[in-house]
Formats: sequence, C-alpha cells, structure tokens
Amino acid sequence: MASTRCCVPAAQIPSRCCRRSAVRVAAQQQATGPAALGRPAPAVAVNNAVAGPHLSTKDVGNSTNIRWHESMVARRDKEMLLGQRGCVLWFTGLSGSGKSTVACTLEHLLHERGHLTSLLDGDNIRHGLNKDLGFSAADRTENIRRIGDVAKLFADAGAVTMTSFISPYRADRDMVRQRCQPGEFLEVFMNIPLEVCEARDPKGLYKKARAGLIKNFTGIDDPYEAPTQPEITVDCFTADGHPRSPLDMAEQILQILDDMGYLRDPRMPTLAAYGALQRKNSDGVLDYAQL
Amino acid sequence: MASTRCCVPAAQIPSRCCRRSAVRVAAQQQATGPAALGRPAPAVAVNNAVAGPHLSTKDVGNSTNIRWHESMVARRDKEMLLGQRGCVLWFTGLSGSGKSTVACTLEHLLHERGHLTSLLDGDNIRHGLNKDLGFSAADRTENIRRIGDVAKLFADAGAVTMTSFISPYRADRDMVRQRCQPGEFLEVFMNIPLEVCEARDPKGLYKKARAGLIKNFTGIDDPYEAPTQPEITVDCFTADGHPRSPLDMAEQILQILDDMGYLRDPRMPTLAAYGALQRKNSDGVLDYAQL
Repeated sequence: MASTRCCVPAAQIPSRCCRRSAVRVAAQQQATGPAALGRPAPAVAVNNAVAGPHLSTKDVGNSTNIRWHESMVARRDKEMLLGQRGCVLWFTGLSGSGKSTVACTLEHLLHERGHLTSLLDGDNIRHGLNKDLGFSAADRTENIRRIGDVAKLFADAGAVTMTSFISPYRADRDMVRQRCQPGEFLEVFMNIPLEVCEARDPKGLYKKARAGLIKNFTGIDDPYEAPTQPEITVDCFTADGHPRSPLDMAEQILQILDDMGYLRDPRMPTLAAYGALQRKNSDGVLDYAQL
Repeated sequence: MASTRCCVPAAQIPSRCCRRSAVRVAAQQQATGPAALGRPAPAVAVNNAVAGPHLSTKDVGNSTNIRWHESMVARRDKEMLLGQRGCVLWFTGLSGSGKSTVACTLEHLLHERGHLTSLLDGDNIRHGLNKDLGFSAADRTENIRRIGDVAKLFADAGAVTMTSFISPYRADRDMVRQRCQPGEFLEVFMNIPLEVCEARDPKGLYKKARAGLIKNFTGIDDPYEAPTQPEITVDCFTADGHPRSPLDMAEQILQILDDMGYLRDPRMPTLAAYGALQRKNSDGVLDYAQL
C-alpha cells in the first residue's frame, strides 16, 4: 500500500501536517540499497521492528524518507478542518429552566450551519459514563468533574460542546473552568426564577419535592448557587416583559458564539480584531496579513 | 435575531433537520394577531415561559410556526456532515507493541484526508478523567469501562475514535464491545510478540518488571489475553519476514476502514454493497436507489 502523502521527502510535506507534532523522520537514506532496485531491504533486528525512540534508519524496511508521528493531531488543526473553535458551553440552571431544550435547539441551529457539536446531558452521561454515581455531595462533585473532563476532550477535538446539567455548586463549575484554557469555557446561566420553573414543573419533580418525596432537591431543600460572572446569561423575558421562546434563547447564544469567533476558522480574525483593524486602516480595507 | 432556517413553515424544513428528532411545532397559527402586524404578542402566562411538554402556541411570543427540538442532533446527521461513520478503533496489545505510535500515525493519515478523529490514550485519560484510578484489578476494569463510554460518545458524534491502552483482559474489552452497536467497535490487535516488545523496551519498563521493581506488569507477572476474533490484526512482520514500519501498519488499518465504508458519507454504499449490486445488475450500472 503506497501513500504519497507521508512518504514524500520531508521538504515536500505541508507544514500543517507536522506543526506541533514530534515527527520522526528517517535520515536521507541514499537510494543505493535494495530499496532503490525495487527489492525489499534485508530484515533488520527484530527488537527494533516497531517504531520507537530507539528506531534507526535501518528499521524502516524498504522505504526511504519515511515519517510518522509520535503525537496526536493538534487541536488547532482539527479546528481548521471543522472551521470552528472547540469550546465548552456549560449550561447551568434550575430543574425546569430549559437547559436541555435550549441546548438541543442550539445544537440543531449549529448543525444546520455545518458545525460539529456534542451535547452531554443526563441521557447519555447518567446512564453511561456516570451510571455508578449517586446523588451524595461527593458523587455530585465527581459527576461534574467527569463531565468537565469529557467536555474538554470534545473541545480538544474541535467540537462545539454543550453540557446540560443543573450543576448547582459554584465550586464544581469553577473546577471545570480552571481545567480549561482561557476562552474555552463559557458558562451559560439559565436565569429563570424558581417560581417559573416550579410553576412549569414539566416532570412533576417540584411537586414531589414539596411533598417530601424527593430529598435534597435543588431550589427546594438544596441550594442553587447562581454564577457570579457567567459568560452568557439567558433571561426568560424580553426587555419589555414578554416570555422568550427556546429558539430565541438559542439564537441569542448562537449570535454570541458567532460574534466571539467560535464559529469560524481559527485563523480568521474575531469581530474584536476586525474592529481594531478597521480603526487602524482608515481606508476601510482589511489586511489579514496584519492580524 | 431572525432565523429563516428554523422559523419557516414545517413543510419547508428539510427532512434531514428533523429526522429522528422529537420536534415540537407550534400549530399553524393564523397571522391575524399582533404578530402579523409586526407588534409583539401580549405576554402569556409566566409559568409557560420556557418551552416544555406543556407549551402551547400562545407561548412562543411573537413568532409563528416556530419549531424547536427536544432531542439532540442524530448521529447519522453528524456522520453525513463529516462524510464518515463514527466508530471505535480499540487498539490492544502489550506495552511497547506500538499502539500509540500506530494510532498517532493513523490519526495523521486520516486528518490529511479530511477526517475528524479523536485519540484517547494515557496522556489525556490517565491524567484527566481517570486520574482517580489506580492499577488494582477493579480500577483497571473501571478504567476501561469509562474509556469505552467516552469512546462511544465520540463515535456518537461521528468521530473516527481511537483508543490506545494495553487493555489486557478480554472481559473488559468485550464489555465495551457489547455496549456498542454492531459494526461500531473494531478491535485492533497489535500482534507483536513479547520478545519483540521486551527487546525494544522503549521506556525501560520490562527491565524494571523483570527486576521486580514493577509488580503486576502485563506479560511478565500479569496476563495479556489476546483477542480471539479481532476485526483487525496488525502483525509486526510482512509475509516475507521483514519488519513493518508504523506507517505501513497505519496504512493497513486505513485501507480496511476505507474498504468497510467508514470513511465515506454513510448514505454511500460500502464496498460489500457495491459488490452485491454489481452481481445483481449485469449491465454494471450502479443504482443507488436499490441500496
């Protein structure tokens, strides 16, 4: 099986392929051996048959100028492939605040625009990865820790990642934030009053909690610690007092992601950079080279 | 903010957008109210402000024919976006068998062809999600269980997902396989003899294990249970006895993925289907409609 992509001499390989990668390249082997004649090279020492730090030019068998990789594809290269920046949209809010509905709606909006997304919620986490966890304080913290680490893996793969969990404790959310790079973690606060959530009560959980049938229910007998500085706050009413639809809320978030440059090739400037450039160049012509 | 994509009447929305989704569509509301005049509709009951099962047409404020989604984007839609099929390539083999080197090389080959990948290995799992786990039998099993669940989440997002762990126990690997859909899990057995791995010993671990400095080391004083029916077996020698390079091994796997249809739009037939169709149609013309 031949590949022209990875067997060409190093000088011909696009730099994108190798950036940030520890690449091992066999030294420029003179094509005077059997390989140059189209015959396989003689077998070499068995203990070097598999690539590794000790591999020498002898070990690549009948290929010259072989290169391979000892680190995974860089996140930025995946982001360029997808035309977006990986990030974690961490939805937090009371039960019934519409986290999952808005996240699902946003995911569809993003998908329709050609963006790759991942949505982690109770359905695919509590019944899978975290099925061994209960609802004790320690288990709740561990639940959020694992979700944060998985969300970060998805962001590393370039996906616009959404998580939809009440995540009532500030310390737990901040723990995830601290594990992320600057700008990677976006806290989305569903700012829906308890009265609204309880009046809706789509699953009848508030009613059960009030009746004492569910203990430690967030907002009733367990605290919800609202974010102090969320990147995105979603209110349930418009400025003139009208209730907002989930679509409206999702579009608000979409617009913010777009404005902040998450939905573009990471090589493209963000709106903020555009603004700075436009101020700099009085003729109004954008010069990407200056960014 | 207006969106023509999700506010158009239901009949105009591409079926792709809605397939497999529980979609809630506001009933065809007569445009005779304030919305038709460009004015906001009167505020409706607060307790229905956020979308949910009880939402009625009144609740969508000033929009008509609004639709939003209560389930996430379907896996197949993500696969069509990416032009590939989500899958889990589960590399298993002894320490020093080249799992990570081959997986990294394969990831670069896939990326160069425009495919989205994810690679889970010790670096991003043992220091993150599974940092709370040790090396007891129970912890090893839990380690594999979590990796399997995360890999499945990535496959659900459409990514060609690779995992690189010794994963010595058959039962643990089979547990992951059973949680996957048919065809989703591909066991990649790095069939490199212990003598080869030990002679290479890139990290000096075998030497330490032989000296008794590391206990329960796979292949030395802990068993490695080779797969009985792996989807892909990677040997370290060619048929004529020459050692193979990691690039050669990665290209073998790439070719298999390609042949099996994982690297194409899932609507396209696989090679197997091509073959069946060609047998069926004696004129040699492929008719996709029959697939």
